[in-house]
Amino acid sequence: MATYRLDLAYEGTRFKGWARQPDQRTVQEEVERALTVVLGEPARLRVAGRTDAGVHALAQVASFDARAGLDCRRLRAGLNALLPEDVAVAAVSPAPDGFDARSATARTYRYRLWLSPVRPVAERLWVWSPRGTVDTDLLVATASLLIGHRDFAAFTPSARLYRSCVRHVVRAEWRPVACAAPRPDEWEFAITAGSFLHNMVRVAVGSMVDMAQGRMTVDQFRTALESGQRRLMGQTAPARGLALVAVDYER
Amino acid sequence: MATYRLDLAYEGTRFKGWARQPDQRTVQEEVERALTVVLGEPARLRVAGRTDAGVHALAQVASFDARAGLDCRRLRAGLNALLPEDVAVAAVSPAPDGFDARSATARTYRYRLWLSPVRPVAERLWVWSPRGTVDTDLLVATASLLIGHRDFAAFTPSARLYRSCVRHVVRAEWRPVACAAPRPDEWEFAITAGSFLHNMVRVAVGSMVDMAQGRMTVDQFRTALESGQRRLMGQTAPARGLALVAVDYER
Repeated sequence: MATYRLDLAYEGTRFKGWARQPDQRTVQEEVERALTVVLGEPARLRVAGRTDAGVHALAQVASFDARAGLDCRRLRAGLNALLPEDVAVAAVSPAPDGFDARSATARTYRYRLWLSPVRPVAERLWVWSPRGTVDTDLLVATASLLIGHRDFAAFTPSARLYRSCVRHVVRAEWRPVACAAPRPDEWEFAITAGSFLHNMVRVAVGSMVDMAQGRMTVDQFRTALESGQRRLMGQTAPARGLALVAVDYER
Repeated sequence: MATYRLDLAYEGTRFKGWARQPDQRTVQEEVERALTVVLGEPARLRVAGRTDAGVHALAQVASFDARAGLDCRRLRAGLNALLPEDVAVAAVSPAPDGFDARSATARTYRYRLWLSPVRPVAERLWVWSPRGTVDTDLLVATASLLIGHRDFAAFTPSARLYRSCVRHVVRAEWRPVACAAPRPDEWEFAITAGSFLHNMVRVAVGSMVDMAQGRMTVDQFRTALESGQRRLMGQTAPARGLALVAVDYER
């Protein structure tokens, strides 16, 4: 047996998230089904980021075990031929012995915010357009409150499912999306941590937008963060603005 | 009565083009229906670019007549509230007397080509990924063959419907899509002319790709162009890569 690494991308809109669930369309189920056909034997995937329903991934990493010596280019072509158009395999590669996609040391998510009064057309499945004005200076200023080694229990509805809600956020910043020229009506939030709690990025973004729209003060945010209580934190931003954009492993 | 200008964007995927047709979902029908509700009276649109089925528009211009003194911001909000998510009104503005969107002096289309062996996920409704390798140097070199005041009969299946197939192409160029950094796997073709023949951009792109994949020589392309015969020209590129991106009027 050998271990292989799968780099993949998907649009989350029509998936009930990564993880298999009975009678639901999930990314894991689609990819495992294609892999089983191509390999001629059942395959089981491990994954770096268990994205929720509606969340996208531009750079997801999964791993699986199969017989040694597989032709990775052919495997990629076979998978892409079988997969639906909202999932694509970017690469298949042999992984070091014992590699497990879950062992990633850092995950980076991006959240896109659309602030133009004109509705997005091309971008609509990838952005959130909150109603009303958003003070982007406040977004920029508050992102750093998330950085560090802290207890993020207030950012998840599932705190009691974790042994510890302490996570290490190494980067958290808002910036205008720059494509050719900066577009002042489109902003993105990038956050990197070793791992994340369920809904953590969406609650962080929703709460920062609450602050930037005047529904919550910076002091209230700080208090909520320290309290560890989800009910003191702000809204949960919609899934469609969120995408997993990078996964890192120790070398 | 007064004339108004409408700037709009749409994703063409689920439309049978701009122009009204019985029992078909068209952009004109959707926008006229919303406009009729908002104005409380029937409205009829004139348009700068009659895009085909599946073709997108990021900057379409239409005009209509209605009573003077309408609140344009409210009109925009009302239209966007009624329109489906694949069409958006970017602006409504009072137009000079006698303004007709059809009188545009230049239209610019963009065609996006996806050359990575990895299938596009986020961009899949907006790009064409031809099978096989494409010589992008040849794309760059041949674009200029289209520039000038010439007879483009060879680029349309509908030549006999026009009094003249002479059109004036003022710009035609291929370049890598640059978003933050240039992406060598994604190219776009931009073409500007006073007006275009039916399918002209798609036949031009399809034929340039035929050259860039070795199915047609540059000499054959020149001969086809001069012959005015569609059957000597190359393939018609798929609609989904094409978008109307700018419309200009004389000042």
